Amino acid sequence: MSELISPKTLKGFRDFLPNAEISRASLMEKFVKMFRESGFVPIDTPCLEYSEILLRKSNGETEKQVFRFNDNGGRDVSLRFDLTVPFARFIAEHYSELYFPFKRYHVAKVWRGEKPQGGRFREFVQCDFDIVGSASFCTDFEILSLIARLFSSINCPVKIHLSHRGIFNAFLSSISCADKSESILQEVDKIKKVGKDEVRRALQESVGEDNAEKILEFVLINEMEKPFKDVLSSLLNLVPSAKEKIDFLQEIYTLLESEGIADFFLLDMSITRGLDYYTGVVYETFLLEMPEIGSVCSGGRYDNLTGLYMKEKLEGVGASVGLDRLMAALIALNRQRAVHSFTDAIIFASEDIDYKTAYKIISFLKEMGIIVEVLPDKKKMVKQYEMAEKKGITWGIYIKEPINDGKRVGDLRIVLKNLENRKEEEIMVRECKEKIKPF
Amino acid sequence: MSELISPKTLKGFRDFLPNAEISRASLMEKFVKMFRESGFVPIDTPCLEYSEILLRKSNGETEKQVFRFNDNGGRDVSLRFDLTVPFARFIAEHYSELYFPFKRYHVAKVWRGEKPQGGRFREFVQCDFDIVGSASFCTDFEILSLIARLFSSINCPVKIHLSHRGIFNAFLSSISCADKSESILQEVDKIKKVGKDEVRRALQESVGEDNAEKILEFVLINEMEKPFKDVLSSLLNLVPSAKEKIDFLQEIYTLLESEGIADFFLLDMSITRGLDYYTGVVYETFLLEMPEIGSVCSGGRYDNLTGLYMKEKLEGVGASVGLDRLMAALIALNRQRAVHSFTDAIIFASEDIDYKTAYKIISFLKEMGIIVEVLPDKKKMVKQYEMAEKKGITWGIYIKEPINDGKRVGDLRIVLKNLENRKEEEIMVRECKEKIKPF
Repeated sequence: MSELISPKTLKGFRDFLPNAEISRASLMEKFVKMFRESGFVPIDTPCLEYSEILLRKSNGETEKQVFRFNDNGGRDVSLRFDLTVPFARFIAEHYSELYFPFKRYHVAKVWRGEKPQGGRFREFVQCDFDIVGSASFCTDFEILSLIARLFSSINCPVKIHLSHRGIFNAFLSSISCADKSESILQEVDKIKKVGKDEVRRALQESVGEDNAEKILEFVLINEMEKPFKDVLSSLLNLVPSAKEKIDFLQEIYTLLESEGIADFFLLDMSITRGLDYYTGVVYETFLLEMPEIGSVCSGGRYDNLTGLYMKEKLEGVGASVGLDRLMAALIALNRQRAVHSFTDAIIFASEDIDYKTAYKIISFLKEMGIIVEVLPDKKKMVKQYEMAEKKGITWGIYIKEPINDGKRVGDLRIVLKNLENRKEEEIMVRECKEKIKPF
Repeated sequence: MSELISPKTLKGFRDFLPNAEISRASLMEKFVKMFRESGFVPIDTPCLEYSEILLRKSNGETEKQVFRFNDNGGRDVSLRFDLTVPFARFIAEHYSELYFPFKRYHVAKVWRGEKPQGGRFREFVQCDFDIVGSASFCTDFEILSLIARLFSSINCPVKIHLSHRGIFNAFLSSISCADKSESILQEVDKIKKVGKDEVRRALQESVGEDNAEKILEFVLINEMEKPFKDVLSSLLNLVPSAKEKIDFLQEIYTLLESEGIADFFLLDMSITRGLDYYTGVVYETFLLEMPEIGSVCSGGRYDNLTGLYMKEKLEGVGASVGLDRLMAALIALNRQRAVHSFTDAIIFASEDIDYKTAYKIISFLKEMGIIVEVLPDKKKMVKQYEMAEKKGITWGIYIKEPINDGKRVGDLRIVLKNLENRKEEEIMVRECKEKIKPF
């Protein structure tokens, strides 16, 4: 016999055991349901693409992290590192088959060879939703209200911090710092992590003391977390040249208020989304009970999604839920009930079990919405109980009489045992429903 | 401006536009629901694994097809080419955390660098379900009855052809051909494709004329598609040494009959599953309306899933739906209704549209289970109709009055238009439900 291979996964890659996978699936299913109810449609793209397509616009940092290789046909290919670049390629490739505005969601795996640490993995699921082909504030509103509803649906109170890259840029122009906007945005982006003193020092080095103060004043214009409207008028005083963009924010706000969800939102000019391709409104979402883990859903408006692949300009707005980070938070907050299976009851295998009867009972109860299994092997009872417990099954069934021609399945006598409190009672099969799932 | 990159996918890789993705997702969702109702739990494993883990047992043919490369850390890694090898590794790695019998399903992508032709793709979805850790005929029955129910649930009549590798091997021993069983199984496996004359020729070359005839007689023992029971007794006459295995088939058959699904099954000794790792019952599933596309769901019993990774022997039984092949068949059979979105109705954007009102109507109708969108841009009506049509939306809504303090959303007047027959009528918002989704 040949030597055994040690079973192990790659660093940064994970198996999902049933409990973890059921949690992840139920979260994704909830979100997908809401995407569909909001008019979003699913698409899928290949996990592997030409490196040229995925990497053209990327910076060196991305490139280093990508799983890139030559396939057996000598093609230079890469595993996708996000769902946005493939989406842009998809839109350009199928432009004539699509319609606009096009609202799509895509929940799928992506890969990045990051140092696996602190909740970062090399394989993880992204959950993106975008509306492309419209410049209307309605579409910004739709994405924002969807974010608010996604987190409400899982009972996670959040605050969504909003800013506008266009207003930031207009402000930088007004103080003649537009040429350094990229590095300024990057510095400001760090403020929640490193604090304002460190950002001040970095800004002083790059734009001098005066401008650094002005930028900080702008960025912290809502340090006191004042109402949206008040901040908009302060902004207008500070950057009158950005009136159109401030009005745009006002339009979005009016709809948020009308929907009764304005309280979820906070104007926060320190949100810049670093080097991302956003050009308009940008946002990050923080869990009220765990803001320190960072944004669990970020996004914004971009003005040219498909610029690399076609001449037509397409603007859009979208966001992405950090599913792994969110799952980690839900576990830390003890908000995840451990579900190990969907099975309600298990029929134990006695020495004289009649499997025909067992499967009749299973079919009968399935019709009533009760999921029942039978143990296929006549193991020791202690083993059978152990299996039921590990699978998280609450009810046990002992068959008291086999089926025969005279009797209907519903009338068969069984013993139903609550495996949690060990209470048992003899009932008929048809009575299981009110015991196990009364509602 | 830099040169545009031509947007294209790799050979054998596909984009799924909304219509195709909705079809695929709804098929997967139906199947997943049935897996869960039958006591199966989901797991997930990484798409990328150590090549040593994935490829040790594979033959040269598999190896040539695998996407294999060195990652940035110099590790020899491969994209998984099926879900079985990773499942075996998973079981061995998490053996102490699991319970048995362990019933898992896994619906996920796999990759093979096959020549992309005739419905074969380099990236495709596998849909596996297995029960490991039991030798009981109950678990064979559970997999088989699940296959029958999966195809019933999508209104696809099927015949499931069943055989038993152990009986085949006992028969080969009885005619002293056991040493050539591998090549014989491979030849026989081709019979549906190449016909019996060609198989006879190949067998004659390898085992001589007499044995070739005997093997063909065995393989075609049920050429007339006789009832299961009759064939079992013919088999017992022919291979008395396989009595135990024939009894095992009889036990499975008794349960299939008791469940009223025996008619879906046919004993067919020509099913061998070629070089697969199966050792017991094996099966293939053919669509009655399109048998020529080959098996849409195959599987069987194996006696040592995890042999490469641990000493404990684990036997099991499982099957895999060929989702892409099945989808192709459903399309060819015109069995797939084209669904382009989940949206029931669209609010058209008139010149004076009040978006606050529009979103109030959307929320109101969502509560009633009706999915409504609004067009965010005041485009020409012909463009708005075109978009609604491409998205497959049946109903159009024109708002006749904006919301105001005195009026409730349900009382607002709208014009509801059936976009298929172009009939329209003025109603109140609350009346939409009975028009759009009366049940």
